Amino acid sequence: MAGCCAVLAAFLFEYDTPRIVLIRSRKVGLMNRAVQLLILAYVIGWVFVWEKGYQETDSVVSSVTTKAKGVAVTNTSTLGFRVWDVADYVIPAQEENSLFIMTNMIITVNQTQGSCPELPDKTTVCKSDANCVAGSSGTHSNGIATGRCVLFNGTVKTCEVAAWCPVEDNTHVPEPAFLKAAENFTLLVKNNIWYPKFNFSKRNILPNITTTYLKSCTYDAVTDPFCPIFRLGKIVESAGHSFQDMAIEGGIMGIQINWDCNLDRTSSLCLPRYSFRRLDTRDVDHNVSPGYNFRFAKYYSDLTGAERRTLIKAYGIRFDIIVFGKAGKFDIIPTMINVGSGLALLGVATVLCDVIVFYCMKKRYYYREKKYKYVEDYEQGLGGKMDQ
Amino acid sequence: MAGCCAVLAAFLFEYDTPRIVLIRSRKVGLMNRAVQLLILAYVIGWVFVWEKGYQETDSVVSSVTTKAKGVAVTNTSTLGFRVWDVADYVIPAQEENSLFIMTNMIITVNQTQGSCPELPDKTTVCKSDANCVAGSSGTHSNGIATGRCVLFNGTVKTCEVAAWCPVEDNTHVPEPAFLKAAENFTLLVKNNIWYPKFNFSKRNILPNITTTYLKSCTYDAVTDPFCPIFRLGKIVESAGHSFQDMAIEGGIMGIQINWDCNLDRTSSLCLPRYSFRRLDTRDVDHNVSPGYNFRFAKYYSDLTGAERRTLIKAYGIRFDIIVFGKAGKFDIIPTMINVGSGLALLGVATVLCDVIVFYCMKKRYYYREKKYKYVEDYEQGLGGKMDQ
Amino acid sequence: MAGCCAVLAAFLFEYDTPRIVLIRSRKVGLMNRAVQLLILAYVIGWVFVWEKGYQETDSVVSSVTTKAKGVAVTNTSTLGFRVWDVADYVIPAQEENSLFIMTNMIITVNQTQGSCPELPDKTTVCKSDANCVAGSSGTHSNGIATGRCVLFNGTVKTCEVAAWCPVEDNTHVPEPAFLKAAENFTLLVKNNIWYPKFNFSKRNILPNITTTYLKSCTYDAVTDPFCPIFRLGKIVESAGHSFQDMAIEGGIMGIQINWDCNLDRTSSLCLPRYSFRRLDTRDVDHNVSPGYNFRFAKYYSDLTGAERRTLIKAYGIRFDIIVFGKAGKFDIIPTMINVGSGLALLGVATVLCDVIVFYCMKKRYYYREKKYKYVEDYEQGLGGKMDQ
Repeated sequence: MAGCCAVLAAFLFEYDTPRIVLIRSRKVGLMNRAVQLLILAYVIGWVFVWEKGYQETDSVVSSVTTKAKGVAVTNTSTLGFRVWDVADYVIPAQEENSLFIMTNMIITVNQTQGSCPELPDKTTVCKSDANCVAGSSGTHSNGIATGRCVLFNGTVKTCEVAAWCPVEDNTHVPEPAFLKAAENFTLLVKNNIWYPKFNFSKRNILPNITTTYLKSCTYDAVTDPFCPIFRLGKIVESAGHSFQDMAIEGGIMGIQINWDCNLDRTSSLCLPRYSFRRLDTRDVDHNVSPGYNFRFAKYYSDLTGAERRTLIKAYGIRFDIIVFGKAGKFDIIPTMINVGSGLALLGVATVLCDVIVFYCMKKRYYYREKKYKYVEDYEQGLGGKMDQ
Repeated sequence: MAGCCAVLAAFLFEYDTPRIVLIRSRKVGLMNRAVQLLILAYVIGWVFVWEKGYQETDSVVSSVTTKAKGVAVTNTSTLGFRVWDVADYVIPAQEENSLFIMTNMIITVNQTQGSCPELPDKTTVCKSDANCVAGSSGTHSNGIATGRCVLFNGTVKTCEVAAWCPVEDNTHVPEPAFLKAAENFTLLVKNNIWYPKFNFSKRNILPNITTTYLKSCTYDAVTDPFCPIFRLGKIVESAGHSFQDMAIEGGIMGIQINWDCNLDRTSSLCLPRYSFRRLDTRDVDHNVSPGYNFRFAKYYSDLTGAERRTLIKAYGIRFDIIVFGKAGKFDIIPTMINVGSGLALLGVATVLCDVIVFYCMKKRYYYREKKYKYVEDYEQGLGGKMDQ
Repeated sequence: MAGCCAVLAAFLFEYDTPRIVLIRSRKVGLMNRAVQLLILAYVIGWVFVWEKGYQETDSVVSSVTTKAKGVAVTNTSTLGFRVWDVADYVIPAQEENSLFIMTNMIITVNQTQGSCPELPDKTTVCKSDANCVAGSSGTHSNGIATGRCVLFNGTVKTCEVAAWCPVEDNTHVPEPAFLKAAENFTLLVKNNIWYPKFNFSKRNILPNITTTYLKSCTYDAVTDPFCPIFRLGKIVESAGHSFQDMAIEGGIMGIQINWDCNLDRTSSLCLPRYSFRRLDTRDVDHNVSPGYNFRFAKYYSDLTGAERRTLIKAYGIRFDIIVFGKAGKFDIIPTMINVGSGLALLGVATVLCDVIVFYCMKKRYYYREKKYKYVEDYEQGLGGKMDQ
């Protein structure tokens, strides 16, 4: 019990600190301070100034809505004179972070359930019924083979299929794009962001934007960097591509909104930065499966109640709005962690200088004698002798 | 060779440990232990207890499905008595993490391709054909100007446009909202989560929820916190907004599901926490471009085969389901990293106490003499003299 | 001023390094080196080799497009012989990271606005008008009660509702699934990834994939691991489920694409790895609210201009494409941070060995005498005496 108390007293009332050799040498002293300075500069410069290690950070939570505007006219033999507006070319009508605008199409009107010849290709061209297997269906078939071989046109015979007839002829994509006027359509992007940790929220329609400005402005990286209305042609151009080329086979454009905010400063400096990137970029010399398209149909019911449909293979540009960013604000916890780590790193300076002083310098043996005290394992007398 | 062996032997068989000054002082000793205790408390308290630094963490992977239920009736001069069900007001029928419920609308029935006067506004009102430029189309136009100036109604003349006619009149949003009964619709949210690292998965329909309970319950933060069926009115109300106000011009509601799980404890304690937030909150005094709406059309074919459509400008509430969360489980690697860092931080205690003892205390010169041994660069004799 | 200069000179030109006791003991020396080796092995092995601490990392930014192919035939009494193609069974026609394929359905043709008896269940079966409250509507109602009690069929009377009539009868889900042939449909997934920090982008259609190969290949984990075309049946099977079972009530499949890339090596080694997981897995013994379905309608206009619709309750499989991954590349900053932390951890070796040498070994008192120098607080004479 008494021994225990003594140990506790020793533990509490004794302070142990390393004994230090102070070498009075300009060379070594300056070197030591230089190394310490370097480490300190690194810790402060990198961790505190560059990486803002004194801040707690949070990732952005975002909601996006989009709205396209614009009208185009087309005049073709199939459809005649026709006006296209938002309800016609935006499919589907609304999506979460994305908007598809149809720029080109292959339209097949008045399809009905029935039997008709397939499009001719390697597997469907036939000479007689023997070439067609009833009930078969390939990956690229438009329907199920009936087993008959029928005339496709004056010269070619193909296997007949049960399908929506007539089948779509997608061998030629219209060029230039059907809705090439889409280049002048505009896209309004409304974006609300929220940093949950700091309960900070902001929208990309900044407080100083008036309704009048919003009705007339168009985004421009230099003159109108905060106008949230984008001309489609400019988006594609900013990403280094040609709108008219992209419109033919479609593609995907990323509209990136970056919200990097330093919340230690006034919130009016927390601003969105827009950038544009084509997300389906492809190698020019490796052009496998390019562009973006999908099929949809409008269904009608004719006089007899039978169902007809208009099949549309829609080529177009999908605009994906990608919101990212980080906000930082001073917080005591990460500051202390980084100060601690920085102090620990300062110990490296001593290690480095020790290596130089005790291994590389001329007077290393003299210095070593001062720093080290040799203790032999079994010969106790020797231990003291070699000291000092 | 022999020298090399000696160096190796010295490297392997010698143990170097710093020489320590043990200062027998109650004041200093206690101070040292107090500082160490503080650092230890910080390391253990913050890193281990609060931040759970002994755990490996993983982010949630989630899949969400939603299903709305509810029926509303409306009785207007345009549409007559009409019942609205899920297939009518959810557009599009399914989305990935989101559901749009139409609450208000401007409906324009029986539009056909043709020519008709534009809505009157600053740019479209005209006196004669000279005011209308054929082929022109503004950002807010409904079609392409034909160049004629025609009567819009008895008193006003506007430029004629080739468009879907008659053009939509969206000057007045119906108030109160057309489908104001949507307040009582319900939304079932099914959510499966997965923590890949720990191969732990769970769904928000908890094991103790029966089919009977699921058929009758409605979410309430206090009485039914785990019922995954939400009344729309309650969601909006929980976020501090009025459903009937929001229904008029639309908006976006976030349904946040938080899955923070400590997998060191039993998995039945890993539970979803729901919260609600309006994602398109706006400043009351800065009401630019409020709400949420989009246009879509239903296409019909009349007796002559000509296409007609019903254009709907749909206002409504989009419910975005946002799933987030982190799971943690004990792991030896992060534990060791944090123990190591903690020990390194303990060295800071010695630095702090040294500063106090050797720079601030009265007996600092006496203590310094014990701690430091001065070694002069050139005068070797002096080095030993100043020691002790 | 002079004193200040002296302090500055002392600060700059003096080098302080701890005095060391060198204990010449094989046991202690080897133990010390062994502990250091362990810590070094841990730092190098774990931090550098395993965790690649010398690399800066970046998360993937991705864009996904999907395309389904395949045709199915059905022959039922309601619809007759009918062919189903992509435009019929993919709803909606395009989504961002997801694709829904209808596999089963309950179809209610020719619904019109009107009054008709509800489906019989606990709450709707009635004996007289007194049982039916006009204007009421339950959660599962198809419409608004008119207050009349009418014959549902020869034997049962139910409350009449104003609704789209006749109401949908969803008591029996067709079994086997209506479009069970969907098992052989194929899904092409096009995925472009981008690592912004390293400006590295790649697509899952690898440079060595030719158009010919792409037209004929199907993904197989062993033989064709890089073919981006998946047979639906195989996806479900790979996740350990039965396609025909899943097709009946629907479900959600995750197609996971993992892009873990070490950009210090050649970019051709950065390859996608596909895996499949059912995201709505449920406990077999806790089958509450299974599968995935939603309702949508096709609207028609009949001869009199009245609106009719075909209501479809679509059961099916939603394929969510989940892209994740990390890329790493050598960078000097994280390397230095980790080297620093590693050196700091080496100090732990000395602490551990000190505990053993000065508290556990037989000769601990002898060693302690060498290491420690005792300084008494008030009796200055004693301090020097105990030192050697």
